[in-house]
Amino acid sequence: MRLRRFTLIVIFIIVLTGAVAAQTSDPLPSWNDGATKSAITRFVSRVTRDGSSDFVPAPQRIAVFDNDGTLWCEQPVYFQFAFARDQIRTLAPKHPEWKSKEPFRPLLQNDLKGVLASGEKGLLQLVAASHSGMTTDDFARSVTDWLATARHPRFNRPYDSLVYQPMLELLAYLRANGFKTFVVSGGGIDFMRPWMERVYGIPPEQVVGSSGVTTFARKPDGSTALIKQAKVEFVDDGPGKPAGIHRFIGRRPIFAFGNSDGDLQMLQYTTAGDGPRLALIIHHTDAEREWAYDRKSPIGKLDKALDEGQANGWTIVDMKSDWKAVFPPEP
Amino acid sequence: MRLRRFTLIVIFIIVLTGAVAAQTSDPLPSWNDGATKSAITRFVSRVTRDGSSDFVPAPQRIAVFDNDGTLWCEQPVYFQFAFARDQIRTLAPKHPEWKSKEPFRPLLQNDLKGVLASGEKGLLQLVAASHSGMTTDDFARSVTDWLATARHPRFNRPYDSLVYQPMLELLAYLRANGFKTFVVSGGGIDFMRPWMERVYGIPPEQVVGSSGVTTFARKPDGSTALIKQAKVEFVDDGPGKPAGIHRFIGRRPIFAFGNSDGDLQMLQYTTAGDGPRLALIIHHTDAEREWAYDRKSPIGKLDKALDEGQANGWTIVDMKSDWKAVFPPEP
Repeated sequence: MRLRRFTLIVIFIIVLTGAVAAQTSDPLPSWNDGATKSAITRFVSRVTRDGSSDFVPAPQRIAVFDNDGTLWCEQPVYFQFAFARDQIRTLAPKHPEWKSKEPFRPLLQNDLKGVLASGEKGLLQLVAASHSGMTTDDFARSVTDWLATARHPRFNRPYDSLVYQPMLELLAYLRANGFKTFVVSGGGIDFMRPWMERVYGIPPEQVVGSSGVTTFARKPDGSTALIKQAKVEFVDDGPGKPAGIHRFIGRRPIFAFGNSDGDLQMLQYTTAGDGPRLALIIHHTDAEREWAYDRKSPIGKLDKALDEGQANGWTIVDMKSDWKAVFPPEP
Repeated sequence: MRLRRFTLIVIFIIVLTGAVAAQTSDPLPSWNDGATKSAITRFVSRVTRDGSSDFVPAPQRIAVFDNDGTLWCEQPVYFQFAFARDQIRTLAPKHPEWKSKEPFRPLLQNDLKGVLASGEKGLLQLVAASHSGMTTDDFARSVTDWLATARHPRFNRPYDSLVYQPMLELLAYLRANGFKTFVVSGGGIDFMRPWMERVYGIPPEQVVGSSGVTTFARKPDGSTALIKQAKVEFVDDGPGKPAGIHRFIGRRPIFAFGNSDGDLQMLQYTTAGDGPRLALIIHHTDAEREWAYDRKSPIGKLDKALDEGQANGWTIVDMKSDWKAVFPPEP
């Protein structure tokens, strides 16, 4: 009988310790306590509490995240543009005509201003030239190789290590609470998928992005390939984001997170649905640890969405004060 | 002590009964025993046995299914076409010009031959006219309403009850073994999503299909909508299926199931990957319980894919001999 009582006490202690540990372990340790963090945790409690009027069944707990400037950095240029630049340089010897053709000329001369002067159209041309004429498998390999070797100019770290630690914690926290997490980005879908499962835990089928046309090819030996064409299929930015969400996901999200005017319509679409909704915007306010930019930035411009977010009571994340850490420790 | 021994015996009996039940319960009761059924169960055992050289990690267990003629009937016309026809009739009073315009004229006169004479282009016109100019929410509602009221001409049952019972069992069996099941259909994505979660257990984000352009709209009151445009965005058929799989799923499937030449490239793409792969084709051989058709059918033509399937050792399902039941019991 002594033994049984002792056993019971041991079990009791184990259970109690577990409960205390569960209660005290913070799922968002890189977020400072305050209004922002509690807006997130309160929302998650509301929608996951069975029996409450705000309960949302798990299949409808769709959370969407912009990528550039929301999950990883986007300065001094979109990382995909840095990739495109490096690819164009690699391909240049095969294209002598680029030396005198905009926007290739300024790019090959390291003239960033000249490249930006070509506007969005010029950037799209560079992306098209560096993202087509190969198989999707070869392209995925070139992305993986580039991430393994290229270094960010300011931090001298691999680009895919410049992801936001608080956001990695948030993704995991939402998934632990039955959410399905999606990326909805203006970036190229084939550029994002090769690394997002490893880095964010988001599988390829939950990555929505811009895309070019691919065509199916089959060789006499039976092997098959998809060839990337220099023709835009879908631009997943601005009003394209709700369209992309509808096309790929087919449900209106209940949780959306962005950082720029390109996310405005996604945030509008998410919050216009019935029931509990949470919209968040990262305000880049930390020039020391990352960057400070908003209304006048050519990259990641946050102007209309900031006004609308403030007017509508969306949660504005102040990077400087809300985040205890910005990046994960260097590997 | 007597009590404890008795309890142990009871537990033992419960465990034993459970084990026997698990061993004898057949996950595919509507499939007759034979080569087809064992090709499926052998494949699933191979890829799920941890430690074996054929083991495939769960995230890569992607299974894709055509819809028309593979998961539900497609005779005497594609069900989506029956929906489009009924929609056009409903909308006709608002479009007097249709009375003298092909392919609307034959459709409104119940002249199926005349409609089919307009070819794929004519069918696409009918689909465009009946599938655009409304919000995605309104369209989803019209699909749901139609399914609740329309009846199939031969079976006098709701269209969404004319799904194949053996395939429902197969979907559940694959999911129970860690597969992620997707529909990859030439049908319209907005036509399929409103009911596939309920009928197949496949959520909207796992439905790949053809689509039209949608545009985002926001009213001054803050409400938002996506408006369906009469412009084709993507045709998910034939060589479009591997492209659609790449675009939406981003991984090559290991398991693909179709029934017509429109599935040929999907089957080629699936089987051309490394490691274990399974490709299956339903051969409609059962005129009594369903239909018998293949090489010369205007709908669901199975010709090249049948030859190639036989030559490559793909599994050809003979509906008449392989299926114990075709449809679920009437509700």
